[in-house]
Amino acid sequence: MLDNYKEIIGFVAAFLTTAAFLPQVYKTWKTKDVSGLSLPMLLMFFIGVLGWLIYGVLKYSPSLIFANAITALSTFILVFFKIKYNKK
Amino acid sequence: MLDNYKEIIGFVAAFLTTAAFLPQVYKTWKTKDVSGLSLPMLLMFFIGVLGWLIYGVLKYSPSLIFANAITALSTFILVFFKIKYNKK
Repeated sequence: MLDNYKEIIGFVAAFLTTAAFLPQVYKTWKTKDVSGLSLPMLLMFFIGVLGWLIYGVLKYSPSLIFANAITALSTFILVFFKIKYNKK
Repeated sequence: MLDNYKEIIGFVAAFLTTAAFLPQVYKTWKTKDVSGLSLPMLLMFFIGVLGWLIYGVLKYSPSLIFANAITALSTFILVFFKIKYNKK
């Protein structure tokens, strides 16, 4: 339980960076405007986030696992939208 | 040195997520178009990234320190541009 204070800082960081990212996902969800998003960038970011998720598990970091699980899911939604709506 | 393989995964993750973020910074640098950026979001993200940086130091995580140092600097540049060019 000595690591508790670390995880408090980690979760505050996780909350702030994730909360700053989610409006982008929501905006894309509502507008279906994916023109500003690049598929290679999104895929690179998605793989990177999965990497952080694995790293979080290896480092026993609840903050990293929490933040990157949410970000991976959000980024997956953006990738899906990019592929689906870019065809039009 | 047992943690080496973890840091390899961490650095790959750091490289991918940071590399996906930098074109946004570069694009803003070149175009000076900050209209799509929200200052509260940028500040929230910046504070979050500083939180991850502190967390990385506490967790002895070179990957987290490396990734968030670069991201903090890049985000600081975006905040600076947002404040400077939004006035026009």
